[in-house]
Parts: sequence; structure tokens; C-alpha cells
Amino acid sequence: MAVWAASPGGPEVLTQGVRPVPVSRPGEALVEVWVAGVNRPDVLQREGRYPPPPGTTDILGLEVMGRVVRPARGGSRFRAGDHVCALVVGGGYAEYVSVPEGQCLPVPGWLPAGEAAALPETVFTVWYNLRLRARLRPREWLLVHGGGGGIGTIAVGLTAALGCHVVTTTGSSSKAVRLKALGAEQVVDYRRAHWWRELQMVGETNGGYDLILDTIGGSYFEHNLELLATEGRLVQIAFRQGSRVSADLSVFLTKRLSFMGSTLRSQRPGDKGRIARAVERSVFPLLKSGKFRPVIDSIYPLSSVAQAHERIDDPAHFGKVLLLTDAGAGQGLRTVPPEAPGP
Amino acid sequence: MAVWAASPGGPEVLTQGVRPVPVSRPGEALVEVWVAGVNRPDVLQREGRYPPPPGTTDILGLEVMGRVVRPARGGSRFRAGDHVCALVVGGGYAEYVSVPEGQCLPVPGWLPAGEAAALPETVFTVWYNLRLRARLRPREWLLVHGGGGGIGTIAVGLTAALGCHVVTTTGSSSKAVRLKALGAEQVVDYRRAHWWRELQMVGETNGGYDLILDTIGGSYFEHNLELLATEGRLVQIAFRQGSRVSADLSVFLTKRLSFMGSTLRSQRPGDKGRIARAVERSVFPLLKSGKFRPVIDSIYPLSSVAQAHERIDDPAHFGKVLLLTDAGAGQGLRTVPPEAPGP
Repeated sequence: MAVWAASPGGPEVLTQGVRPVPVSRPGEALVEVWVAGVNRPDVLQREGRYPPPPGTTDILGLEVMGRVVRPARGGSRFRAGDHVCALVVGGGYAEYVSVPEGQCLPVPGWLPAGEAAALPETVFTVWYNLRLRARLRPREWLLVHGGGGGIGTIAVGLTAALGCHVVTTTGSSSKAVRLKALGAEQVVDYRRAHWWRELQMVGETNGGYDLILDTIGGSYFEHNLELLATEGRLVQIAFRQGSRVSADLSVFLTKRLSFMGSTLRSQRPGDKGRIARAVERSVFPLLKSGKFRPVIDSIYPLSSVAQAHERIDDPAHFGKVLLLTDAGAGQGLRTVPPEAPGP
Repeated sequence: MAVWAASPGGPEVLTQGVRPVPVSRPGEALVEVWVAGVNRPDVLQREGRYPPPPGTTDILGLEVMGRVVRPARGGSRFRAGDHVCALVVGGGYAEYVSVPEGQCLPVPGWLPAGEAAALPETVFTVWYNLRLRARLRPREWLLVHGGGGGIGTIAVGLTAALGCHVVTTTGSSSKAVRLKALGAEQVVDYRRAHWWRELQMVGETNGGYDLILDTIGGSYFEHNLELLATEGRLVQIAFRQGSRVSADLSVFLTKRLSFMGSTLRSQRPGDKGRIARAVERSVFPLLKSGKFRPVIDSIYPLSSVAQAHERIDDPAHFGKVLLLTDAGAGQGLRTVPPEAPGP
């Protein structure tokens, strides 16, 4: 079974059906999917606002955890039966997916399958942007807008584990408690009238934020510039409020700021492989020691994919939303219902 | 004698008068100025649009070449009589200036005094921004807007010497010839109607520009984003057309762009010292081998400073405009009149 959007629209357009097992190209391993991650780009693709790159399957899904059933020809690292998680360019909501071997990471015995499935899209994104591009260093001050989402919880937990001072925002007091447990030093409620001023006051104690991770854009852009410290970096990974901005850029000169952005999906397999190696080298030790754990919001059966998409759009969700295939259930993995909404 | 702006205005407000010899703070060397560089920020300061940092002298001038008359207390590198060039935070248009030793570079016998005076502000700016911040590498494609000015000629000559492919713009065909002699592979005339399209066509042969150095801003900003290649960097060091922009930033995500800016003057002496060491290590060998030479437009006596400022604002100038003090003239250094304007 596989899932795609029959036409652009809401969760109701998600279509389940039988598709052929993908044919692997040289260097690709065929993976039996046990758990697939649900990410915001999947929602945008469903709505017709984020078309897959040319030549890519229309089956949704950017990350999986599962078992290698046919290793890559010419590949050397994985054997049939190995447990892996992988960043895929599409096709994750399916029983099988074919993926360049370099984009696979081993799933060691100590790493739960669900947590492994939660890594590729979000951890790769956070690590690539914050560490490899913006060179975030321990003890720097970091602002993560919207800490409660899939990217937000990973960014807060991972950078706190790295020894950064993390400040984040949320609209829910129960999420604020959980974000502090993840390592956030300060959580600002963006429902309050003067929340920008609050962020500024928190930042000012340290001369501003060294780094801001933003997925909102729009009117946030100019505020972000104001909040940044000297030599601060603004990292943009989505524009949920729009990418058209009007701003005075003179602070880029006076504060020596940098602004950068990226998407993961359009990158070449070799580049994704390099990110995968960096994550394995630097993030796996944090996972193994327990300093960093991805937060799982809920795990739905793949057949309930529409509910999983509704959950992603529900502001109550906290952490990653995952899908469980029949093969995964056959391995003893279990669905996890979402928590009842907090205050 | 020293020069300052009595009130904000045109070259006529430049006032010459006697000022006390500056008192050196710990770590500062007292330098007898022979040649001082004229830079655009001096013009902005004269116009009242670029006030000196708090605590800085109102005497104009950001770079000098001269002789150490009193070494820094606790300093170790320079002795009285040593020839140096230096980046100063102000006070260069004078007989004496006091400067943190770290911001001084030795002037070896093979380096003409005028060329040495042309280095600190522009070469430091170009090297810091393009190499240390934007990590320009040999064989990358670089677009320098307005190649004929003080920054432009240095940027074209230095990056060509580094092995980059340099494209630049100018509004004069005689300057175009000189820019090609400096190493520009292509020079586009911005007086022509379709000059953006021309830049784009040149860039497209290589997938776009890896790096753009811009001093214009305003409407150039969005064009620059369009011209950049994947992982391209836009480096802004001034906003002559204004710093308020309106633009669609979505290409930052799809092309993984970076935008950064800086000013040199506001940086701490330690940071300026690090830039000075990098220039000495990396640019001096290019100077010594003759691969790179700063272009001198003209050298005026310090008493003709108003004419020097008029020359900087004259689009006909090509390269650096310098000022010669009486002490410099006493050393046998000579003034150089500007060339007659080309077609």
C-alpha cells in the first residue's frame, strides 16, 4: 500500500492504493518501511504548494525507518536485514522505498524504531542549517520560533544537548512546561501582547541572540533582525507567513549579520549523504547518552494517514507525528494516540 | 595640520587647522602620517550621514601610511622609524595619528608608499568580507558591482589574483579596458538598456554567480538574488541606493543563498588586528609577486582635501584617491594629478 494526493486539497485527497515495488537505481538500497515520518512539507505537497522535484514519485513521505531487503548494488555498508533510517526524496508513505545508500543511517539496538524514524528530515534539517551552515557553537544564545512543532522540539532538544542557551516560543502553557523539560531556558508565550518585547528583554541580558531559527517569515523578518546580536545569524527554513518581505537591511552592516536559508529536498544525494555522516558522527553520541531524544507526538497506522495530517495541522501536537505500516506492526511496533490537548 | 568637517555639507565644509598631537593609549603607536587614503565613508561622515563611533576624533580619515615615531608601550613589533600602514578608526587626515599596534602592517622596501596607503580600508574590507566571511575560493564566479571605484578596483584585482572568475560593471568604456587589464573576464556597461540581462547571460554559462559584492542595495537587492547560483552569497558593504528593500526571499531556501554585510569601523581593535594579520599572510605575497597591485587614481596634497573629495564623487575616478602630507612630501613622495576623463 502507498499514499499520494489524488489532487491538491485537504487530508481527504490522500489516496491509498497499490503501487509497484520501486525499482532501485545503482547505489540505491530497497528498504521495507516500518515507520514513516509526517512532515510539514508533506502537507504542502498535498495542498499542491510544494511539488516534488522532477522525476520524483508522487507518493508522499520524506523519511522512513525500516529494514534493508535488497542492499545497493556496489554498496558496501548495509546488508539485507539491517535496520536503517533514511532521508528519502519522496515515497516514504509506502511499504517499500528505494533510497541512495548514503542517505541511510544504521539503527543500533539501543535506538527505538519510532525515534529513528523521527530523525532524518528534522534532525538533518536542524543539524545542516544550525551547525553545518550557521556554525552554531556551544554556549551561544539561540531563539527557536514555535518550539512545539516537529522541527521546534528537535531544534530545542538538540541544541540544548549541545550546550547552547535556548529560548523558544509557544502558545500553550502545557507546551511551555514540556519545552523547559527539553532544555529551553526561557519560553515566551506568543499569545501575550508584548511577546516581542519579552523576547527582546530575554535577549538583551546577553546582547541579543547569536542565532535565530525561523519558519514563519513575513512580518517576523524585520523583528528577527532587531533581536539578533552582533554577528548574529538568521536561519530561515520555511515561510509560513510568506516570503515577501519589506525591511531595512542597514543592520546587516552595523551588526555584521548573516541571513541564510535552505531546503533539504532539492539537494543532491552526495550532499545529503554528507549531512547523514555528520549526523551519525555528532548526533548519535548525544542520542546514545540520552542527552537528546526526539519527541514523539503520536503514531498512526498508515491507513489512518488523513488523521495524521489533521494532527500535524492541530496546534495541540507536540513533537513528531509518525505512521506505522503493517510490516512495522508485524515487528511488534505499536501505534500511539495523541495526548489530550493541554490548557 | 588636520582636517575635519565644521558642519555637515559638501567639500566646502572641510576645515583645516591645528590640532594637538594625539595622546596614545596603551597598546597604541604614534605614527607620523605621510599618505592618507580617501574613502567613501569619509564623504558620508562629512555629510553627517556616518557619525564616528563614540569617543572617536572628528578628524576624518580611516587609513594611513607613515612612520612610527613612538612605538606602543608594551608593544613588541614596531620600533621608532619603522614604515607602517594602518587602519585607523578616524584621524587619518592629519600629521600624526595614534593607532593600536595590531592594526598596523609593516611596509617593506618593495612596497611603494602610495600603494601601502591604499591597502588598509579597502583591502581589509574586501578580504574580510569576501574571504574571511563569505569564504570565496579560487575558481568561483564573482560579480563586483561598479568595478571602477576604490573598493571595486581592489576587489577585481585581488580576486582575479586569487584565481577567481571576475565579472564587473562600469559606465565607461575606457574603464572597461582598464578593468580587463586588472583581470576582469567580462565587463558589462550598466548604461546599456539590458545590462541585467547581460549579467544574467554571462552568469548562466556557469549556473550563476557564486558571490556578488554590492555597494548599491535598493532595487539591486532582488536582482542580485536572481543572479546568484545555488549556494551563492550576496555580500553587502554599503547601500548607496538605500537599505530599505522589498523582495521575495523564497530563493534563499530553494537556492540555499546567504546574505551578509559588515562595516569595518565599528569592529574592535582585536578583530581588526586579526584581519590585518590575515591580509599580511595572504595578500602581501600577491603584492610582492606583482600579481596584485592597488590602483592609484590620484594623490592630492592634504591642503587640497576638498578637491580630493570632489574627485571621489566624480564618476571619472578610477582607483584610490590619496592625500599627501608635508612630511610625506619631505620624504620625496609626489602628488599625482587625476587622468583626464575617458569617453
